[in-house]
Amino acid sequence: MSTATTAAPIDLNADLGEGLGAWSMGDDQAMLQFVTTANVACGGHAGDPGTMRRCAAMAAAADVAITAHVSYPDLAGFGRRFLDISADDLRNLVLVQVGALQAITRAEGTRVRGVKPHGALYNALAHHEAQAGAVVAALADLGGQLALVAAPGSVAARRAQEEGIPVVLEAFADRGYRSDGTLVPRGEPGALLTDTSQVLERVLGIAREHGVRAVDGSWVRLGARSVCLHGDTPGAVELARAVRSGLEEAGIPLGPAIP
Amino acid sequence: MSTATTAAPIDLNADLGEGLGAWSMGDDQAMLQFVTTANVACGGHAGDPGTMRRCAAMAAAADVAITAHVSYPDLAGFGRRFLDISADDLRNLVLVQVGALQAITRAEGTRVRGVKPHGALYNALAHHEAQAGAVVAALADLGGQLALVAAPGSVAARRAQEEGIPVVLEAFADRGYRSDGTLVPRGEPGALLTDTSQVLERVLGIAREHGVRAVDGSWVRLGARSVCLHGDTPGAVELARAVRSGLEEAGIPLGPAIP
Amino acid sequence: MSTATTAAPIDLNADLGEGLGAWSMGDDQAMLQFVTTANVACGGHAGDPGTMRRCAAMAAAADVAITAHVSYPDLAGFGRRFLDISADDLRNLVLVQVGALQAITRAEGTRVRGVKPHGALYNALAHHEAQAGAVVAALADLGGQLALVAAPGSVAARRAQEEGIPVVLEAFADRGYRSDGTLVPRGEPGALLTDTSQVLERVLGIAREHGVRAVDGSWVRLGARSVCLHGDTPGAVELARAVRSGLEEAGIPLGPAIP
Amino acid sequence: MSTATTAAPIDLNADLGEGLGAWSMGDDQAMLQFVTTANVACGGHAGDPGTMRRCAAMAAAADVAITAHVSYPDLAGFGRRFLDISADDLRNLVLVQVGALQAITRAEGTRVRGVKPHGALYNALAHHEAQAGAVVAALADLGGQLALVAAPGSVAARRAQEEGIPVVLEAFADRGYRSDGTLVPRGEPGALLTDTSQVLERVLGIAREHGVRAVDGSWVRLGARSVCLHGDTPGAVELARAVRSGLEEAGIPLGPAIP
Repeated sequence: MSTATTAAPIDLNADLGEGLGAWSMGDDQAMLQFVTTANVACGGHAGDPGTMRRCAAMAAAADVAITAHVSYPDLAGFGRRFLDISADDLRNLVLVQVGALQAITRAEGTRVRGVKPHGALYNALAHHEAQAGAVVAALADLGGQLALVAAPGSVAARRAQEEGIPVVLEAFADRGYRSDGTLVPRGEPGALLTDTSQVLERVLGIAREHGVRAVDGSWVRLGARSVCLHGDTPGAVELARAVRSGLEEAGIPLGPAIP
Repeated sequence: MSTATTAAPIDLNADLGEGLGAWSMGDDQAMLQFVTTANVACGGHAGDPGTMRRCAAMAAAADVAITAHVSYPDLAGFGRRFLDISADDLRNLVLVQVGALQAITRAEGTRVRGVKPHGALYNALAHHEAQAGAVVAALADLGGQLALVAAPGSVAARRAQEEGIPVVLEAFADRGYRSDGTLVPRGEPGALLTDTSQVLERVLGIAREHGVRAVDGSWVRLGARSVCLHGDTPGAVELARAVRSGLEEAGIPLGPAIP
Repeated sequence: MSTATTAAPIDLNADLGEGLGAWSMGDDQAMLQFVTTANVACGGHAGDPGTMRRCAAMAAAADVAITAHVSYPDLAGFGRRFLDISADDLRNLVLVQVGALQAITRAEGTRVRGVKPHGALYNALAHHEAQAGAVVAALADLGGQLALVAAPGSVAARRAQEEGIPVVLEAFADRGYRSDGTLVPRGEPGALLTDTSQVLERVLGIAREHGVRAVDGSWVRLGARSVCLHGDTPGAVELARAVRSGLEEAGIPLGPAIP
Repeated sequence: MSTATTAAPIDLNADLGEGLGAWSMGDDQAMLQFVTTANVACGGHAGDPGTMRRCAAMAAAADVAITAHVSYPDLAGFGRRFLDISADDLRNLVLVQVGALQAITRAEGTRVRGVKPHGALYNALAHHEAQAGAVVAALADLGGQLALVAAPGSVAARRAQEEGIPVVLEAFADRGYRSDGTLVPRGEPGALLTDTSQVLERVLGIAREHGVRAVDGSWVRLGARSVCLHGDTPGAVELARAVRSGLEEAGIPLGPAIP
């Protein structure tokens, strides 16, 4: 790992607006103090219109960038279950979810800068050609200006690049990586970084080198310009605060990955 | 009733795209031959993303204008049941439904020109101040350019005019009117015009005078610039064809009410 | 107010199982230590199948009776919005929600003893003849053995009694009453009892006399055999604990109102 | 192929009640003249409470047996898309859908005799051990008396037999079979039988020998006691009429496969 630093700002993103009507999840207001991009649920796995609007308003007030956190249509499963949806249906579903959030954000004087797939859809886009192609086609339908937030090495990232759709690669602050750049599966040793100092070291590495140290000790170049922080786990707010402070103390500039 | 004619074109509108996934309703392709505006369902009472897109594409191909046919969220009830939704929730719901259809129409190279409330919401907006205010507020949130399609004398029409939102008043081709401009309730004598020649006479009256002959024989000035044709009743297509032919034979220009 | 006591046990009921998938509300496990009847959400305002089953299993383990907490179909609105549903549709909706919970409870070796309407439906049944008749008709469809949990003086209670459906009248532990037996509207003085000792006095009055002291000081005979405790408000668990302890210290027997 | 006939009646089943609110699919009343078992949608892919009840009432009036046509929760996709639902969630989902229909059928003086998975779930149960186990576990939860309608050779059929759940194997009247008992995939030659006389010969073979002639000419023993007729394809009613007449003319007794 080189010690050279980059002047490009690092982006901290988190999934917010994940309530539905009377139900809430996580502490959006607290997280918005620390992140630079909010992935706002838009009706697929969470996010009724009122929740969407409150989240967009809070993000606008905090000067935090917004992406549409698109998902399979599965409120009861919180978007965590793979759905074998056709490419056409997925493409139109993404359009509808993004369009909904665009109307909401415009009403709050802000805008949607990109699209981040959620949960099982995010996972599917690592390898599922048809679904990846559908999401990229939706981004083209939307005008080709919105960026796709994607995992390094994913089929979705490749397809977007092929089609000229802007891509932001992200890495997880608290997940273990293997030397091929894939995540250590949950349940295996090293799957989760639980120590704040480990997480901070990880985030500094992403900020400076856009890569991560894998569980076998090797350095993996990911090209990541954004760090995903979890917003709904125990201690999420405190971890976000620590990461933000650590980056600021290290003199790393922070800012949205999508202009 | 004066015999003076107007040069302004008359608009024929119908509710289309009212399927959901495997279910369909009415014959959109046939109706699009005759109408000048399609009110496209956008997920409230009907209209999954694929149905929305197919309908938008057909309307674009037929050079037919599009409004968003917004509704209470009630697929099982087809939007025909009053819901005591709060003004804030309704406002945001309208934003989300319109935004969804805007993304779909942009992908098809066309656009949403206005908003027409559906079913029980349409009926509520005749008198419900809070809900009428919410729909008008949503139109302001959307930028104030989209027109509201409303019933003459409705609270929604008044509220929109007060807020500077463009309004298109419509009349029904096949419903009986009372001398105060309200509809004869279904089940009462004269509630429905069933004879094609009666309907055509009605439509010519709206086109030339923007009003209707009430059941008591009096002439009612409605200011209507658009005629609503039903798309899903038996004989709907034939009636639409007859109305269109009758207007063309009478030399009445046809065109969308919303520029 | 007489000082005579009754040997009949008093029932403490609370609304539980009000989560949906990844979302939860309140602390069911804690509340089950103190109540004798759990009103379990069954898909209308909350309660996916997994949440229903976990709640039924916990209630069975705690030897707590179960009612089906039926609701308008409105997850996004948590069943708090009036829906102008037809009597036939409401009747069949109640059947379906109760039947769903019956299958779940049988799988857990327990059963549904009654039906408690939720939220806006509960409020509507105070006065709405058609909807009250529909719920009572559903109870007849279900065999006529399940009890209806209803507000004293409600149309639903009267209709159920007329049709021979068992009725359990309930009173609220923490709501103010007027001398005619109706609740003091939220927002008015005396609408909420916030002091634990006040609540306990209220509950003892219900247990011993089946009535409440109204805000004007008069005694109101309600005939209530069950006390409704809120499960999802701040301090709900502590209040339930205090009520339970107070009743036990006063030597009042506790038990489900429905055999 | 032996020429011996069997005295056991043959069952004709079809998928009915596949509407939702204002939407309908197929002609249930016509199909009920010809089938002996109706697979009634129960809210997963179709079937709001009113549609369920109307279908159950018609089936009862026609003296047709009822199974619960359980499905992934996917109205917009009509249950035709695989969902990677957990075994626990699927088990509870089946409970809830069956329980809902049980309440409806009891109200109409009839009952649910079995469970037939629909669409993508039916297909998954051919091979998916966890989902097959979940459906079988739900049938055990329901008391172990309801039969599972399944494809010959499916994992679900095997799992049900292992757990002592009654199984009815079915064959399709109009689908081509390969010599290993699996269906010829749609799109390949021989996938569909389109000629009425072919279909009738197929059905007579199932009725007499419980097997089918494969596309390669070989005879495949399936053990099928029920024939599935499609209810929503063009000509479905006429084909059902022809099959029913053909069986009656051949002296084959007809009756539900589940007592």
